[in-house]
Amino acid sequence: MTYEHTFALKGNLVYAAVPGKLTTRYNAYLVCAGNQVAGIYDALPEPWAEIPVTDYQDRLIIPGLVDLHTHAPQFAFRGIGMDMELLKWLETYPFREEARYKDFIYANQAYDRFVAALTMSGTARAVIFATIHSPATLHLMEMLSETGLQAYVGKVSMDRNCPVPLREKTKAALEDAEQWLRQSTDRFPGIRPILTPRFVPSCSEKLMAGLGALSAAYDVPVQSHLSENRAEVHWVEELHPGRSYAGVYDQFGLLGNPKPCIMAHCVYCTEEELELMKNNGVFVAHCPQSNTNLASGIAPVRRMLRKGLRIGLGTDVAGGSSLSMFRAMSDAIQVSKLRRALLEEDEAFLTIPEVFYMATKGGGAFWGKAGSFEPGYAFDALVLDDTDLGFKGGLDLEQRLERIIYLSDDRNIRAKYVAGQRLF
Amino acid sequence: MTYEHTFALKGNLVYAAVPGKLTTRYNAYLVCAGNQVAGIYDALPEPWAEIPVTDYQDRLIIPGLVDLHTHAPQFAFRGIGMDMELLKWLETYPFREEARYKDFIYANQAYDRFVAALTMSGTARAVIFATIHSPATLHLMEMLSETGLQAYVGKVSMDRNCPVPLREKTKAALEDAEQWLRQSTDRFPGIRPILTPRFVPSCSEKLMAGLGALSAAYDVPVQSHLSENRAEVHWVEELHPGRSYAGVYDQFGLLGNPKPCIMAHCVYCTEEELELMKNNGVFVAHCPQSNTNLASGIAPVRRMLRKGLRIGLGTDVAGGSSLSMFRAMSDAIQVSKLRRALLEEDEAFLTIPEVFYMATKGGGAFWGKAGSFEPGYAFDALVLDDTDLGFKGGLDLEQRLERIIYLSDDRNIRAKYVAGQRLF
Repeated sequence: MTYEHTFALKGNLVYAAVPGKLTTRYNAYLVCAGNQVAGIYDALPEPWAEIPVTDYQDRLIIPGLVDLHTHAPQFAFRGIGMDMELLKWLETYPFREEARYKDFIYANQAYDRFVAALTMSGTARAVIFATIHSPATLHLMEMLSETGLQAYVGKVSMDRNCPVPLREKTKAALEDAEQWLRQSTDRFPGIRPILTPRFVPSCSEKLMAGLGALSAAYDVPVQSHLSENRAEVHWVEELHPGRSYAGVYDQFGLLGNPKPCIMAHCVYCTEEELELMKNNGVFVAHCPQSNTNLASGIAPVRRMLRKGLRIGLGTDVAGGSSLSMFRAMSDAIQVSKLRRALLEEDEAFLTIPEVFYMATKGGGAFWGKAGSFEPGYAFDALVLDDTDLGFKGGLDLEQRLERIIYLSDDRNIRAKYVAGQRLF
Repeated sequence: MTYEHTFALKGNLVYAAVPGKLTTRYNAYLVCAGNQVAGIYDALPEPWAEIPVTDYQDRLIIPGLVDLHTHAPQFAFRGIGMDMELLKWLETYPFREEARYKDFIYANQAYDRFVAALTMSGTARAVIFATIHSPATLHLMEMLSETGLQAYVGKVSMDRNCPVPLREKTKAALEDAEQWLRQSTDRFPGIRPILTPRFVPSCSEKLMAGLGALSAAYDVPVQSHLSENRAEVHWVEELHPGRSYAGVYDQFGLLGNPKPCIMAHCVYCTEEELELMKNNGVFVAHCPQSNTNLASGIAPVRRMLRKGLRIGLGTDVAGGSSLSMFRAMSDAIQVSKLRRALLEEDEAFLTIPEVFYMATKGGGAFWGKAGSFEPGYAFDALVLDDTDLGFKGGLDLEQRLERIIYLSDDRNIRAKYVAGQRLF
């Protein structure tokens, strides 16, 4: 665990500096200086001729992956109860489980497993929902910080339409959120707080307005859910007649203006909502596996891309069963194909370079410069060994990357660097 | 590798004797006698009081899984080139690769990897496409037989609309198929031949008629593809005007009457075709991942179930990237949810007990009694260790099975028995 040093990795580099196009460099040096990418070279130039080099030979080196949306307290029951749609499922699984995180001992035990799995995964940076409980959330932030991962973590806020154990009183909710912001800001290296109204149905207008004010006052970003499921969208229409779902967040300063924000799902957003999000610089967290498991639908990602929205991918555990961002990439392609096939749309399905961009630089942009190997970007890198995936002869790096995206698991990750630090 | 002995496994048994319903037995003995399931007991009764017992403790024991449709010669390029629809993809990848299997050395090397992967997977029984090449196909059958797996393997027949290296002359195609049947029948323990016209577009009427006659004369079943993709279905309409796709197979004695047959995909079958298949006892091989990767669509499985069709699952490597039947089960559920969400159908999505039945007894019925723990069924069993998948406290066996289906990989398979023989 050494920071602020200068070194190089050697191997086959693949990254996406622009959407939909891979850059590949065979057998090249990727130089890290001051925790950032300094450059890519076929031979090390003079100032770096003597720096330490780790030679990963024929392996692939890609930017660390970015998970824009996942729920740490739902990790314990992932892969169970996938037989319900969103609102019934929330009552049956997440709400019951999340109530347990009031118990610090339980939270510690469960978060320990989540943090261990995230560390061993391909994810370098994640944006995470915790629960309403400040002590457990602070502890999660501390544990994450110790791993070397980079993350935004949100103490959840919710004061209506949820079971009593998770229902905060509005005033206390705002006081708790503010106190938690003060306690967590600049305290855990690599880990930052993010304001987290669960979603419109579980937040009163007063709570949303208060959180919007905190976001502005403390210069803290926001994350929430938007337009995931038809029944949820209808519910929001009933709760806030005359306003769009995105419009409700916008009304309370929670839709990326002035502070950045992430909205997960966005399956049923209207053109007007997409336009508003585009203007506000909102990041869409596309969560294909979750939207499949909860029978929500398929987000119109091609349309969002055409509109120029900022899009990253999310695993959304436990709506999604898998914490793997490789799986999130192949899922994103697969559901886009089914959207095309079933709706007989003219929209082209997503490609490997497109989803790879979303899972790296697309989501990484939430941190500023992360998710690419361009100079000045945070030095996040995964070393991938595809030996056990089949013959390599005749395959180019794009094909080897594609096969990794479809077939790899944690065993194929040989090394992981985040912000210049080697995690394993 | 001991045959014909009597022993018991002890553990938590889960199987599906009827569609849509799991039977669970905690901490029970599963007795194997004469390579078949003799019974399930809470305590071993007198005649078996002294037989060897392997105690798998808290692990799950389920029937070995059945893959009704996969392509051995496509294993080498799985996970690559997933950016095309069926007909273009066939020309670009499978046809080129399959032509290489004329080279016995290459075929041996590539099939070796396929057979090793299949052996280590959860699959106990598989129905497999090879290529047009008899020597390589016979070698594949021999290699499979040595593992202890049970399989039907087909030398492919095709004499039109395909590249020259794979295009057989009709007369030679029929002579080769017949000679291969003679050479392979009753030669490789556990492995049987199955006649394999590739699909209607690549088989002349004369070839199909000849294969139908061989099926009847040699009492050998048939496998093929049916109604996978819209462009393919239109092509068949042009080639055989006035007849349905299924009707063409039926016309030539290739649609399950009198011999059993498996038709893969069946995404766009009409009601009339489904009725014909039902009457002929056709097995549908539902291949959800392949139908997704090739942007083909989603088969109407709920409708098929209501009609009473026989349905199993297939991985369809390399249209499907994964050889895992666990993945095939979760894929089947997931695409059924998207079908419901996108087409706003009233059809309920598939459940764990339904897809588990398809992947065990549903497909196993192609062998007669396989895929269940009922007495008289072939003794195929997988021992599954879910320790690394999370907390087990409070979960019942159905929930643990669900989590395994969504999250497990080959590391979770602790032991595998096929027809009474332990493979690992």
